[in-house]
Amino acid sequence: MTAQPARTLRDLLDDNDIAGLQEWLAEHQPYEIADELARADAVRAVLLFRLLDKDRALTVFEELDPTDQHKVLSGLRDHAFRDVVERMNTDDRARLLGEAPAKFARRVLAGLSPNERALTAALLGYPEHAVGRYMTPETVAVRYYITAEEALAVVRAKGRRAETVYTLPVVDDRRGFVGTVSLGDLVLSPPDRQVLDIADTKTPKVQATDDVEEAARLMQDTNVLALPVTDSENRVLGLLTIDDAFEVIEAADTEDIARQSAATPWTGHYMSASVVQLARSRALWLLLLILAATLTVNVLQFFEDTLASVTALALFIPLLVGTGGNAGAQAATAAVRAIAVGEVRSRDVLKVAWRECRVGFVLGAMLATVALLVGTLIVDFTVAASVAVSLVVVCAWAATIGSVMPLLAKRVGIDPAVISAPLVTTLVDATGLIIYFLVAQFVFGL
Amino acid sequence: MTAQPARTLRDLLDDNDIAGLQEWLAEHQPYEIADELARADAVRAVLLFRLLDKDRALTVFEELDPTDQHKVLSGLRDHAFRDVVERMNTDDRARLLGEAPAKFARRVLAGLSPNERALTAALLGYPEHAVGRYMTPETVAVRYYITAEEALAVVRAKGRRAETVYTLPVVDDRRGFVGTVSLGDLVLSPPDRQVLDIADTKTPKVQATDDVEEAARLMQDTNVLALPVTDSENRVLGLLTIDDAFEVIEAADTEDIARQSAATPWTGHYMSASVVQLARSRALWLLLLILAATLTVNVLQFFEDTLASVTALALFIPLLVGTGGNAGAQAATAAVRAIAVGEVRSRDVLKVAWRECRVGFVLGAMLATVALLVGTLIVDFTVAASVAVSLVVVCAWAATIGSVMPLLAKRVGIDPAVISAPLVTTLVDATGLIIYFLVAQFVFGL
Repeated sequence: MTAQPARTLRDLLDDNDIAGLQEWLAEHQPYEIADELARADAVRAVLLFRLLDKDRALTVFEELDPTDQHKVLSGLRDHAFRDVVERMNTDDRARLLGEAPAKFARRVLAGLSPNERALTAALLGYPEHAVGRYMTPETVAVRYYITAEEALAVVRAKGRRAETVYTLPVVDDRRGFVGTVSLGDLVLSPPDRQVLDIADTKTPKVQATDDVEEAARLMQDTNVLALPVTDSENRVLGLLTIDDAFEVIEAADTEDIARQSAATPWTGHYMSASVVQLARSRALWLLLLILAATLTVNVLQFFEDTLASVTALALFIPLLVGTGGNAGAQAATAAVRAIAVGEVRSRDVLKVAWRECRVGFVLGAMLATVALLVGTLIVDFTVAASVAVSLVVVCAWAATIGSVMPLLAKRVGIDPAVISAPLVTTLVDATGLIIYFLVAQFVFGL
Repeated sequence: MTAQPARTLRDLLDDNDIAGLQEWLAEHQPYEIADELARADAVRAVLLFRLLDKDRALTVFEELDPTDQHKVLSGLRDHAFRDVVERMNTDDRARLLGEAPAKFARRVLAGLSPNERALTAALLGYPEHAVGRYMTPETVAVRYYITAEEALAVVRAKGRRAETVYTLPVVDDRRGFVGTVSLGDLVLSPPDRQVLDIADTKTPKVQATDDVEEAARLMQDTNVLALPVTDSENRVLGLLTIDDAFEVIEAADTEDIARQSAATPWTGHYMSASVVQLARSRALWLLLLILAATLTVNVLQFFEDTLASVTALALFIPLLVGTGGNAGAQAATAAVRAIAVGEVRSRDVLKVAWRECRVGFVLGAMLATVALLVGTLIVDFTVAASVAVSLVVVCAWAATIGSVMPLLAKRVGIDPAVISAPLVTTLVDATGLIIYFLVAQFVFGL
């Protein structure tokens, strides 16, 4: 199923075989169609999208990333365009507009009914990474003093328009937050029971201005299907649903992973990204890193005499700096991830530093013995000894700064993931060389 | 809230202040308590856990990773021990046993009621990463021919024991899979409506033996709250719920990230991992990589005369290999992630290689100009020129193999994430040096 359709699809698109395309669409799931739309260029994507019937078109559309949604929409004529954006979920729409150029955003808002426009504008009022952008305002709230039976009646009456009916905010007469009640409990409890008795009043909640990634992690920690969102006066504004939280976390992981390799994260499908886009996302850091790397040139220049007198030392430069870099990268990656999932906090910095220092020492000692053997075999003992000793120091040093830097970054409010493996590696290269040559000078009594 | 309690907690635990501890427990959410349990050593963790009342104890316990669950359980006396394991969700229990030593597993199974033991044993029958290990067998299935009202009655009758009642498998008389119906639709549709009319018969489903990560990604792609799980005869066995899928994906991401830094992933809390555990998780790869790095020594030995005649070439070795390594790491990381989230498939290998080759070329050209300037300033033009030319070739080469290797790994059935940034870097180091010296020999006419 993976290999066949896509290849055929490409052909069908190229020779514009409408009947064949319709057949292909009928045979595939919305998420499979969405994937192909994301991979295709704008023209092909629109051609394919146009062939979908209204309802499927919307389902497929909602599976797309904002970038790809933008790609498809831009190619649609006004009526089709308006139809899609009008029927999108408010929160998805806000997300789409948040990342789209202003001109496009205006076209979307213009296409909306007054009511939808108001809802969307409200969400767009929140900062980019705020919960408000991601929450659904279309919820079914119930008053705390009505009965389970009455609450179910409310669900039946208003449920159709809501994005979820599994978690209902429980509110007082001024929409003040009281708690949440799950549809399951409403169904399972005696009809005359008061909502307040079945409601969960200790449920975690967030404010619309809170950071959405933290909110999503909170949902994950507390295993709730939806997180109530309130304003500063504790009035209920909407719900953050688990599928949105799921996407937020995945996007955050993708970003962190990109940053960990010193690339600037970009939204959108890898296969639809152009060479220029890919290059741009990586250029800045490579540039900064090569400038930082000129440090290593200076260091080596400083020790040029030592290098000249014992050329053999040069042979081990890549091995030494490479190994140190790897040890540092491992520590940095572990620390960044531990911070991201909330296992490590800024105030753990000393504890972490001390542990990683010992880890680096243990690893360095192990690698040193290997280097001593190999080095003695390939070159001679004295050089091998300098390499071995340096490895111990460099690994301990690399692991320590590798783990400490992300924590310090977090403390000063920088995304810890910015402390990428390449960044740590580059820094370790320069410092590692200094250590190496100082050790060598000592060993050779220079 | 972040800074204060934990520090106090440590003190409370140290001077065994029961009253104080109980107060602390009362003030904190289950997931916060779980986090502290994960960070504490076994003795402290058990002391704290014992102070929780039955119901909270279970909630907290279910927030823990298997490793930490094991840590806590091992310290409990038989009756408390039995009470916890008996009341765990079947799928959580199976996961706990899957990762625990046999002796411990036997103790758990011995503590179970015959019914729970049977359910657990059934799940344990599935391979480690199979959906069967993670699904909940405790579901409420409804026959396709009954009415919505009757279905709701079934939910009321059996719902209490089920892990979720939001997605109900719709089955025929021999438990054959027909589709799923959501509690929401049951509530919202007219009571006399037949279940089959409201059921979603096109919903995606998986088999209990399928890979759980793929199943979880499928849930994410299709935005379903629960995925029906069947056996090879299409009979319904249970449901994979979204909170479990969420955990599976997060665990997979954590694993991939660890692998990307050439560390062996381990389960459990970063702060509770010992120096030895951390070292062990990183040692193997560092060892392999340093052995691979001896290649660079040989390469340099081979070019030792060139190096001796133009010592200045040595100055740029770390900069050159470092930059090449970074370019390769970026490409590898991007490819691994794209594969993980299903954006790239093995058959895209040529398309990817060609794109990344051009990306590397563009980046290399950019960096070369910088190197040419800096190099000419620091040393001289000829050396700088060799470095610049090498950079272009090395970056193109690094980006290409960095992106291709994960795809090839996948094709031959190896986890693409094993193609870690350090691995790519190390390979690029050796090959990059060869390119560098060949270019240099040409430039200097040696």
